[in-house]
Amino acid sequence: MNLLKRELKPGTVLVPCPAVIVSVGDETETNLITLSWVANLCSKPPRMGIGVVPKRHSYDILKRVGDFVINVPSQDLIEETVLCGTKSGRDLDKFDATGLTAKPSTLISSPMIDECPLNIECRTWKVIEVGTHHLFIGDVVAAHIDESVLDEQGEPDLAKMSLFTYNPLVGQYWAVNEFLRDW
Amino acid sequence: MNLLKRELKPGTVLVPCPAVIVSVGDETETNLITLSWVANLCSKPPRMGIGVVPKRHSYDILKRVGDFVINVPSQDLIEETVLCGTKSGRDLDKFDATGLTAKPSTLISSPMIDECPLNIECRTWKVIEVGTHHLFIGDVVAAHIDESVLDEQGEPDLAKMSLFTYNPLVGQYWAVNEFLRDW
Repeated sequence: MNLLKRELKPGTVLVPCPAVIVSVGDETETNLITLSWVANLCSKPPRMGIGVVPKRHSYDILKRVGDFVINVPSQDLIEETVLCGTKSGRDLDKFDATGLTAKPSTLISSPMIDECPLNIECRTWKVIEVGTHHLFIGDVVAAHIDESVLDEQGEPDLAKMSLFTYNPLVGQYWAVNEFLRDW
Repeated sequence: MNLLKRELKPGTVLVPCPAVIVSVGDETETNLITLSWVANLCSKPPRMGIGVVPKRHSYDILKRVGDFVINVPSQDLIEETVLCGTKSGRDLDKFDATGLTAKPSTLISSPMIDECPLNIECRTWKVIEVGTHHLFIGDVVAAHIDESVLDEQGEPDLAKMSLFTYNPLVGQYWAVNEFLRDW
């Protein structure tokens, strides 16, 4: 096979990507920021990374507080996800603007978003200046899942979680609705 | 709202994640490895990261060669994706085993997989020892997309790309088949 290929401008074209709402803050100030430069990075110890631009309002809060929550939204939260990625916390309180609920985390300062079916508490381990984005690598210290997205055996049910992806290649959100196979 | 939440063991529970086949090598040796600890990390310069365990066969090749290709598979390549993630290059030649075609890259040593609709050439910029996984951060130096997955305007068409995700929370592959909204 020798398929016809077209050149793309070198860029952040990887697809599909997670789209998560990161919550960060303390009693002084909280903020929400939608991010897609996000990944599981290491299995042991469990560590995840989030890429954040220093001029973003959340950046200084992330630096000061030293922890954050990765909240995985379901499809019914897509408008809230878009708002948290396109408005700045300098201009509005995003918890107020979205109606999302800040719930105290169990081990860290930053609150979690109650309405998101999956919440991952991370304590910042290291910050790496990659370029426009700084990579915050966090230790996963706790994780929580809604009872409502578990199956009868108590295992997570992706159909109930109603996940979606962000696809920077085309700037589109797409649903994850169809099981293909087990690992 | 105060939803009932259940505790999960802290782990790499982020969903949904990309599932890519990384190709690496030179005239001496090539290998394929399926990875999910993968992300766009930085917009300028465009940089991506892949997390690899040092005992994996590809690790030494990655270190020696200093570059790699992130190949994004379509749903019709899911069996090949699973094979490249569950077999070791120590035991078999994965290009032979899958029938996938190694096509020369344009700027780096590692070949790309011709059958994957999207190929991203990366030159390693930095390797960070995060724990069990080492994070290879690469500069995106070139990217290629199949003509067959472009729409009439020459833009990438995700429906034609037929993408899928890996979901480590449950160890399942799910399809990305439904457009939700633009950014």
